[in-house]
Amino acid sequence: MSEWLGSLLEMTERIYQDVHRLFGSKISRKVVGHGAGGDITRYIDAIAEEAAKKYVKKKKINCVLVCEEGGVEKIGEKPEVYLVIDAIDGTTNATRGIRFVSASIAASKVNRLSGVEAAAVMNLYDGGVYTAEKGGGAKYNGEKISPSNVEDLSIAVVSVDLSKSPETVNKVVPVLKKSGAIRSLGSAALEICHVSSGRLDAYIDVREKLRTTDIAAATLIIKEAGGILLQPDGKPLKDSSLTKIERFSLIAAANAGIFRQIKALIQEV
Amino acid sequence: MSEWLGSLLEMTERIYQDVHRLFGSKISRKVVGHGAGGDITRYIDAIAEEAAKKYVKKKKINCVLVCEEGGVEKIGEKPEVYLVIDAIDGTTNATRGIRFVSASIAASKVNRLSGVEAAAVMNLYDGGVYTAEKGGGAKYNGEKISPSNVEDLSIAVVSVDLSKSPETVNKVVPVLKKSGAIRSLGSAALEICHVSSGRLDAYIDVREKLRTTDIAAATLIIKEAGGILLQPDGKPLKDSSLTKIERFSLIAAANAGIFRQIKALIQEV
Repeated sequence: MSEWLGSLLEMTERIYQDVHRLFGSKISRKVVGHGAGGDITRYIDAIAEEAAKKYVKKKKINCVLVCEEGGVEKIGEKPEVYLVIDAIDGTTNATRGIRFVSASIAASKVNRLSGVEAAAVMNLYDGGVYTAEKGGGAKYNGEKISPSNVEDLSIAVVSVDLSKSPETVNKVVPVLKKSGAIRSLGSAALEICHVSSGRLDAYIDVREKLRTTDIAAATLIIKEAGGILLQPDGKPLKDSSLTKIERFSLIAAANAGIFRQIKALIQEV
Repeated sequence: MSEWLGSLLEMTERIYQDVHRLFGSKISRKVVGHGAGGDITRYIDAIAEEAAKKYVKKKKINCVLVCEEGGVEKIGEKPEVYLVIDAIDGTTNATRGIRFVSASIAASKVNRLSGVEAAAVMNLYDGGVYTAEKGGGAKYNGEKISPSNVEDLSIAVVSVDLSKSPETVNKVVPVLKKSGAIRSLGSAALEICHVSSGRLDAYIDVREKLRTTDIAAATLIIKEAGGILLQPDGKPLKDSSLTKIERFSLIAAANAGIFRQIKALIQEV
């Protein structure tokens, strides 16, 4: 079990407290700069990330922080852990008041995605939290979770990220036509957690836009829950460095049957 | 102002109380029959509709009930009002535990969609409620609402229903490619209310599947909020009888600019 999960939970709690009142407000969407990955940083992103950083400094955690907005920052003299933070995953939802937003935090002792040993993804509207520890299973609010047993795509509920990527929409059109129900909810970390807990049967993003910070925590959660997370061609996700900005496409699926059906449809195009 | 809004609010409250604990549960999705429109009725649909009916009977409201599941039923000797009820809009979300589900209730003295004079749509996860009275504006939790002033589709947040309609997906592909962000949230009534309050900039359903019960309340809410609700070709919605099962396609938009851009893209195909 990981020594870090408690700290991650406290961090998500601090973020929740500082941003909850801001959802849907005019000030939340104010542009305050540009993040490490080149995207715009909005006021609510900055406030959320600051809440996490303040916690780390107050608790004197010696770490390498890897943040969506602020990039890589060494805190203390001898870092014991990498903390990979997307303090607001679903900024558009947060600024518009659409109730599907999360904070995602992962801890790893090594600078590799595969090293993540503790993870927390909190739904920032209601405080519900998905967690995982390497080898210890995945949980939602402390209760063990597992993916659905839906194996037939024609009755599956599938969430697909379709935003800001006109060149990749055609790839997923066959999936839109053959799935039982389509959703597009707007927070990748939370959507992968929904696959982990059986709320969704699959989540698809083929836009090559997801960053390590978006998925580091959810990667461990779905693995520990017993679900599937692979590249659209079926290869494992690249075991990338946590401190480098990488871009991912992926399919999260409840089981191998659902994954195979989606993969086949995407490759038809 | 309408004498009915208070009753509608009490009805949504009763539904909320009876179904809240059921979300995401196994029993919620048990099939218990078929609704008036031919769709499957699940346990949670039946419980929710029963909560509304019990209220009407207890309060001795003489009315014609028009329900998603139970169809048309006369209650009392001299009906004073038509009550059009979709007690669970977003049944898939409700049974899977995806937190976007509503109860929709409209009141009209005449048997026409245009006659709706009071409307309530409650978000059944958190109890937040959208209301409207004919001539009295639209509100969310008692505060006046209005649509967004986003007029450029390339920065708009647009929700599109893509489920269970392979033959209509191609029609909306140009919209998927040109909108700022795409959502698909799974409760038409609540999505139209999100357009009314500026949380979304548009909502599109070209599947010819929406029923009068799904949209009766939201129709008044978006009109009173000052938004746009038209058929995809720009014609007004058919002023259909409330007691007949009609099927609709529609575009809800924050303003005429957004509507025009979406209409043009859909008609290209």
